[in-house]
Amino acid sequence: MNHHDILAATGLSEQELNGGTLAVFSPIDGAEIAKVKETAASEMPAVIAKSQAAFKAWRKLPAPRRGELVRILGEELRASKKELGALVTLEAGKIVSEGLGEVQEMIDICDFAVGLSRQLYGLTIASERPGHKMSETWHPMGPCGVISAFNFPVAVWSWNAALALVCGDPVIWKPSEKTPLTAIACMKIMDRAVKRFGADAPEGLVQLVIGGAEIGEALVASKDVPIISATGSTRMGGIVGPKVMARWGRPILELGGNNAMIVAPSADLDMAVRAIVFSAVGTAGQRCTSLRRLIAHHSIREELVERLAKAYASLPIGDPRQSTTLIGPLVDHGARDRMLAQIEKAKAEGGKVQGGRTVTTNVPQGGAYVEPALVEMPRQTDTVREETFAPILYVLGYDTLEEAIEIQNDVPQGLSSCIFTLNVREAETFLSAVGSDCGIANVNIGPSGAEIGGAFGGEKETGGGRESGSDAWKGYMRRQTSTVNYSSELPLAQGVKFDL
Amino acid sequence: MNHHDILAATGLSEQELNGGTLAVFSPIDGAEIAKVKETAASEMPAVIAKSQAAFKAWRKLPAPRRGELVRILGEELRASKKELGALVTLEAGKIVSEGLGEVQEMIDICDFAVGLSRQLYGLTIASERPGHKMSETWHPMGPCGVISAFNFPVAVWSWNAALALVCGDPVIWKPSEKTPLTAIACMKIMDRAVKRFGADAPEGLVQLVIGGAEIGEALVASKDVPIISATGSTRMGGIVGPKVMARWGRPILELGGNNAMIVAPSADLDMAVRAIVFSAVGTAGQRCTSLRRLIAHHSIREELVERLAKAYASLPIGDPRQSTTLIGPLVDHGARDRMLAQIEKAKAEGGKVQGGRTVTTNVPQGGAYVEPALVEMPRQTDTVREETFAPILYVLGYDTLEEAIEIQNDVPQGLSSCIFTLNVREAETFLSAVGSDCGIANVNIGPSGAEIGGAFGGEKETGGGRESGSDAWKGYMRRQTSTVNYSSELPLAQGVKFDL
Amino acid sequence: MNHHDILAATGLSEQELNGGTLAVFSPIDGAEIAKVKETAASEMPAVIAKSQAAFKAWRKLPAPRRGELVRILGEELRASKKELGALVTLEAGKIVSEGLGEVQEMIDICDFAVGLSRQLYGLTIASERPGHKMSETWHPMGPCGVISAFNFPVAVWSWNAALALVCGDPVIWKPSEKTPLTAIACMKIMDRAVKRFGADAPEGLVQLVIGGAEIGEALVASKDVPIISATGSTRMGGIVGPKVMARWGRPILELGGNNAMIVAPSADLDMAVRAIVFSAVGTAGQRCTSLRRLIAHHSIREELVERLAKAYASLPIGDPRQSTTLIGPLVDHGARDRMLAQIEKAKAEGGKVQGGRTVTTNVPQGGAYVEPALVEMPRQTDTVREETFAPILYVLGYDTLEEAIEIQNDVPQGLSSCIFTLNVREAETFLSAVGSDCGIANVNIGPSGAEIGGAFGGEKETGGGRESGSDAWKGYMRRQTSTVNYSSELPLAQGVKFDL
Amino acid sequence: MNHHDILAATGLSEQELNGGTLAVFSPIDGAEIAKVKETAASEMPAVIAKSQAAFKAWRKLPAPRRGELVRILGEELRASKKELGALVTLEAGKIVSEGLGEVQEMIDICDFAVGLSRQLYGLTIASERPGHKMSETWHPMGPCGVISAFNFPVAVWSWNAALALVCGDPVIWKPSEKTPLTAIACMKIMDRAVKRFGADAPEGLVQLVIGGAEIGEALVASKDVPIISATGSTRMGGIVGPKVMARWGRPILELGGNNAMIVAPSADLDMAVRAIVFSAVGTAGQRCTSLRRLIAHHSIREELVERLAKAYASLPIGDPRQSTTLIGPLVDHGARDRMLAQIEKAKAEGGKVQGGRTVTTNVPQGGAYVEPALVEMPRQTDTVREETFAPILYVLGYDTLEEAIEIQNDVPQGLSSCIFTLNVREAETFLSAVGSDCGIANVNIGPSGAEIGGAFGGEKETGGGRESGSDAWKGYMRRQTSTVNYSSELPLAQGVKFDL
Repeated sequence: MNHHDILAATGLSEQELNGGTLAVFSPIDGAEIAKVKETAASEMPAVIAKSQAAFKAWRKLPAPRRGELVRILGEELRASKKELGALVTLEAGKIVSEGLGEVQEMIDICDFAVGLSRQLYGLTIASERPGHKMSETWHPMGPCGVISAFNFPVAVWSWNAALALVCGDPVIWKPSEKTPLTAIACMKIMDRAVKRFGADAPEGLVQLVIGGAEIGEALVASKDVPIISATGSTRMGGIVGPKVMARWGRPILELGGNNAMIVAPSADLDMAVRAIVFSAVGTAGQRCTSLRRLIAHHSIREELVERLAKAYASLPIGDPRQSTTLIGPLVDHGARDRMLAQIEKAKAEGGKVQGGRTVTTNVPQGGAYVEPALVEMPRQTDTVREETFAPILYVLGYDTLEEAIEIQNDVPQGLSSCIFTLNVREAETFLSAVGSDCGIANVNIGPSGAEIGGAFGGEKETGGGRESGSDAWKGYMRRQTSTVNYSSELPLAQGVKFDL
Repeated sequence: MNHHDILAATGLSEQELNGGTLAVFSPIDGAEIAKVKETAASEMPAVIAKSQAAFKAWRKLPAPRRGELVRILGEELRASKKELGALVTLEAGKIVSEGLGEVQEMIDICDFAVGLSRQLYGLTIASERPGHKMSETWHPMGPCGVISAFNFPVAVWSWNAALALVCGDPVIWKPSEKTPLTAIACMKIMDRAVKRFGADAPEGLVQLVIGGAEIGEALVASKDVPIISATGSTRMGGIVGPKVMARWGRPILELGGNNAMIVAPSADLDMAVRAIVFSAVGTAGQRCTSLRRLIAHHSIREELVERLAKAYASLPIGDPRQSTTLIGPLVDHGARDRMLAQIEKAKAEGGKVQGGRTVTTNVPQGGAYVEPALVEMPRQTDTVREETFAPILYVLGYDTLEEAIEIQNDVPQGLSSCIFTLNVREAETFLSAVGSDCGIANVNIGPSGAEIGGAFGGEKETGGGRESGSDAWKGYMRRQTSTVNYSSELPLAQGVKFDL
Repeated sequence: MNHHDILAATGLSEQELNGGTLAVFSPIDGAEIAKVKETAASEMPAVIAKSQAAFKAWRKLPAPRRGELVRILGEELRASKKELGALVTLEAGKIVSEGLGEVQEMIDICDFAVGLSRQLYGLTIASERPGHKMSETWHPMGPCGVISAFNFPVAVWSWNAALALVCGDPVIWKPSEKTPLTAIACMKIMDRAVKRFGADAPEGLVQLVIGGAEIGEALVASKDVPIISATGSTRMGGIVGPKVMARWGRPILELGGNNAMIVAPSADLDMAVRAIVFSAVGTAGQRCTSLRRLIAHHSIREELVERLAKAYASLPIGDPRQSTTLIGPLVDHGARDRMLAQIEKAKAEGGKVQGGRTVTTNVPQGGAYVEPALVEMPRQTDTVREETFAPILYVLGYDTLEEAIEIQNDVPQGLSSCIFTLNVREAETFLSAVGSDCGIANVNIGPSGAEIGGAFGGEKETGGGRESGSDAWKGYMRRQTSTVNYSSELPLAQGVKFDL
Repeated sequence: MNHHDILAATGLSEQELNGGTLAVFSPIDGAEIAKVKETAASEMPAVIAKSQAAFKAWRKLPAPRRGELVRILGEELRASKKELGALVTLEAGKIVSEGLGEVQEMIDICDFAVGLSRQLYGLTIASERPGHKMSETWHPMGPCGVISAFNFPVAVWSWNAALALVCGDPVIWKPSEKTPLTAIACMKIMDRAVKRFGADAPEGLVQLVIGGAEIGEALVASKDVPIISATGSTRMGGIVGPKVMARWGRPILELGGNNAMIVAPSADLDMAVRAIVFSAVGTAGQRCTSLRRLIAHHSIREELVERLAKAYASLPIGDPRQSTTLIGPLVDHGARDRMLAQIEKAKAEGGKVQGGRTVTTNVPQGGAYVEPALVEMPRQTDTVREETFAPILYVLGYDTLEEAIEIQNDVPQGLSSCIFTLNVREAETFLSAVGSDCGIANVNIGPSGAEIGGAFGGEKETGGGRESGSDAWKGYMRRQTSTVNYSSELPLAQGVKFDL
């Protein structure tokens, strides 16, 4: 399908596509595909006020009823999966399978959140005082601002929105300036769900604001938006987090990763090679969980690099709309320039580079296509410690597992990590208190491609937030500890006496 | 017992008592009771490095073994309860029963933490991929800096230390400059526990640093202290939180409260009066959970104020060492001055004041003794919205429960709250999503005196942290989501296809 | 709709309707509506073997994938809600709204189970040994026999099937002999879901067996059916439970209730009357949670009985297919005879009866229509202690709450209970350790009509099983506690030494 | 120490030791060491009534206060560890280290239960109805009968008692007729704890009944003992379970095991040998978790048997009081005769036996000392499928892991199991849904020696009960699901309409 057909299939109106001034370009060929309307900074107070008003109504609705809206949203996403996936391809440059996979992730989180809507479990707790009952309950928190990035233009929003809605929180979404179209398309799907759901959904329950830093800043600064869930760069998060904290809000940060794989001598190399390639070059290396560092045991390092080089050489690079393509374009030329610059820095530090060149043949003109790069490094340098959002894989060697883990942990980020080994002791050591310091630690699968059932996120410069599964929903609610005295006595805790 | 006897009973050495330059005064009579050694700012890097080294060893010890140290600590605290309680009275000015109660709280949290040491439950989670196993595990996090306040000079430390130790984290404690002696006494008790525990406890596992802002700043700024648990004023927390966040640490903030009680028409007034008096004047109104605002239904407001005034008039104010005393001194003259100034401001806003005067007769000279103040306000003014760490109780009226809840929530703080009512509907509404917005919400007991089994803390300017019971221990650990692939296949999540 | 239209709408084939010898009668008019094929006892070994074979495959499928089948089942149930609800009306005699409500409950449990399919949480647990990892995982258990009763001909199956399927267990369903048609209709819906789901669902995953005691006995006796979930009479459960236990299976029993409501002086009587009427006469008193005993405070007893008598007199009794009807027929004439006999016994014990007569005018001929009965009793007699599956409400009086609770608990059954009171102390006492001994205890709602999010069941003669929400799913899985030693040492627990 | 000294150290009085007719023999030398008083069957109703009365009081005490009794019990056990351990050695014949280890287990469970006493967590659950609150609470259940076996004469009681007491349930203990002295000694320790605890502990909170089947039968049959926790043989459990079920009680069964170890080609054989020897011959093979079946890969089977034979030959057999002894006596001569007979049966089925002979030299005369037996079997025969409570280890071979797991699971029992392998895939497969069907499944540690933090028990003929850690405490409480309606409306679940 050409650009026009993809856009037409989504049902976006001419007004939505071309009613504004924010130019949208497709990474496929750099073509401008839309000019969308930006939210004016002056509109933000009204947006936030509307969200607060929606909160007053939405929090009263029983959670299972709120879940019903998310269930319907899941149905609508199923119905629009193909079209929305294609738009992800068009606007973010992902290959077809990944575009569809991203929508599938939205559907999965909706199913999960529907189940949650009858749980949101607090605790009843044994009280130390006779005739007293203690419990902990979770209540809606208020509007949740969602700041998302271009590389998962729709899934990250759905992770936050599905949970926030079930938890009783309205949503204000500020997508990346690079991907407003997928956001608009999601809002239309959401609107369909709301319409089917009926009058119980207050106006302004989910709102979209489009624009740049100023818009985001309005969310970050507002006391009326108690939760800010921000996904993106460490630089962005390093500004957002303290600001939200300073006005007593709750930041949920999903920031950079510098994800590594340790390949042990016992590893199944066939599997490792496949996992490495997918993790390192999938989404053109633009996932927060993309594999960026390969820490290979000296005994197998050489063979591994050889096999990788061969695999890399055979990867189909090109138009992401073609079903055979595995590597699409980078998001824009700036991203490519940063990649090339980083490779130069690595070379200067002793790196031996394979690939990493701009691709101009057999690819749509205008897009930023690159060969993925394999960079063998003499040691973990400053350049390696930086996250570059591009398909560069640094290769390092190690002798002992302890050393490998030290290398793995010796970066500022803490998102994802993995080990390939068939050895129980190595696998479990890697997962233990002295192992990987990342929020995600896998064995015999790559660092990317998390299931929605687990909590997603990590410590250090990754920001410490958790989203998606497990009890990540607690991030969207406030906790209330309560004790009810149903006796006629007033005993004090800890046996304190205070008799009038 | 006189000051000297109390100090002697604790076993503090002459060097510990008088080896430094930081003067310590007893609120009882303003007497200087010690001159303790301050930690030099230049020592902080070594302190932190020692803590990091201790972490490397401590995290490897099985948690139930770590729990054994905390169990022994509990035994030692039981053995020293009386002496430590008396020192709390001497240094913080608490009455005897409260001094002992605070130590009991330390003992309780130790018992609780011992049980936790065999739990620290993560999850095993159903994976969507065949031959895959997903789980979530909690690992030690690193050194935990504990910044505590004068009003709970030992309990707050124990809340943090018992949990942190069981969770695998060394502790660096910076107590209030006003209460270094109780901290030193605790360290001696801790040292005895460590000695009995044996060689498994690494050097520097629990360290004490004494001094002012500069010392605290060193903890707050260090990347090597991933957790900062700070208890104190909103002003302090407003500085600490963003700074810790900015260097990617995890703040656990327990800050101010502006705790209210709603008294409904159906309330058991006998119980309410007793609860109000204890909550408002206990610890001379210097608890973070002290009752500061009374929101009484118009139908019973007058009677209630009358009964309170009578009760207030009969309260024994004086030397906290005497078992009959219920109200001891404020921590110092500055606190009293702030109280008096606040009362003047309230008056200017229309407040009608009973009590609230300095007391100089029948009290030890040199201490800051005051009558607790009842201040009837025409409405919730700015002065009422501020937390004043003193026994001022503002009285407000209401007509409907909705209005009462609105008044209750309309302050910047979110710590504790309660309602006195015998009516199920009112009680449950108060506890519901449209009820109190505080972290603690009680029915028919006052806002203060939490049991250690529940999570303690609140949102808004209270800082959002949780300590003590429930799953507050998670704040001291890092979460790891891991997936182990034990098959020979490499399926991707969300059905993504990426075949080489 | 007449019988024929209802049957036609379900899509049951002539063979399904009339291919056998088991006559099915509609309670509406006693008409024979079908003659369905019974499962021969000799077929049971093959049925069970097929289920075991299905288990081998089904347990390997990831739980979220199993959940997808249940999600599709939920979709199919939504699509067939009206038709299936009407069939429930035809075959079980429920009024329209209840027939639809029952299907809604099926849909709800499917949504809930889909969420569960990504949870099924076990625990990771802190181990006392270095280099060891402890965890608890839940695994599929094997075929689950579901024995259900006529009064919830489809919902109970869905409660069990949705959970069992997600948990990895095939299902063999033996419905009541009185309601095979709704079972056949469910199987057709299930088959449609399986078809859409595809080849991952093994043959024999859900099987239906129709017939009498001999068929049930084959399930109960088979070691290859590890779980027997049986809903029905205490008499039945008293046979099934020990038999399953004796062959080392796991019984999940949901048996009789003798559910009471305490009405306190402070109760909102308007609400109480409505709740009593629905709970006592809804489903013609044939719910396991139907209200059977009213324990009213002496101060309001008379007024309450008067209001109930008036309400009872105005209840529309008749054809359950008519939207205005609130009381349909009893399941058959035997049920009516038992009701009438029980009323006579109650009279002999001093009961004063209102209503309770056979109704023959303005009702379809051939059905067993009765007036609901209000029976004021002088005390709780043996007759009151028995569960009679019919709309008899015994009224008892009380003076103190303690006495009321004693009456409430003094029956052999332990399913559901409630109190109507606006008093916090009474409400919480009723819910406390000294309150109701039932599995379900409500405040200001009747005993019937549980939400699927909570665990359903009770102790004593109710059988002790739990179904539906909370962690009832654990009843369908086996628990595995495992410790992995990834060290090179072999320490023993509890410090035992055993050195070769 | 000789018998007399051991007895003297426990402080048992002459009346306790020799006031009755039940002869107690030491397995060490068969000497009669006491004649204790048996409980008459006619006393049982009074015992049970006293327990019920105690329940009425105990259930009202806050759980953390109940936990305080268990904490004190732990202190008393610590103080009496040596003496009680020695008595275990004397009466049950365990070696010194195991006797002490058993007491340590008692101490551990006390610590754990103290923590639990502030948890006993139920849930708060999202309700589908506005103005409704749903929760699940756990309440005390009633008297708990504990039937324990000779091989863990004190630990099993403590597992049950510590949890039951914290959960609010009184305890009636019927120990093995072979080990009444350790039971009496425990009761004295318990009495000391109760005395220190004070008046809150009602009379009859923990009672001991001594005697045979008739006594046990009285517990099993009584409706006033809702929980029967029985540890022992499958034969016993097969009688107890159905009987308790038939009178609507709750059985917690911990019965036989037929525990296996799979040794894979990659196993660390040094570790495996040590683990096998301890698991198979520790406690003279009389643990319910003793290793009974060794399933070794053909490639290493021969070597393994050789090394085991050598290790077996060097094991010090003899007086368990000597610190060098590793194998003490069987409990009595009957046990030895059964062992020898079983070996003969195995021989007849093709078994090749090493060891397994009576030992008469260098051992105390009068005791039943045996060499542990290694029996290589051609296949898993009926004899192998039986549990023999003696140190017989059957050795079987396998080719594929699938085959090994099939052998492992193909016995009627389901308690404990393990695999020795360094291979991740094998380890995880063993722990997966298609792996071991036992309640306990370990990797690289033997089947015996569980930590108290996990749930202990298994399915099939092991009885299905769970004790000790995780949420095993729920077995001692009743679950209450409650919904509180605090609105003025009466909505029905599932949208049912029923308007008067």
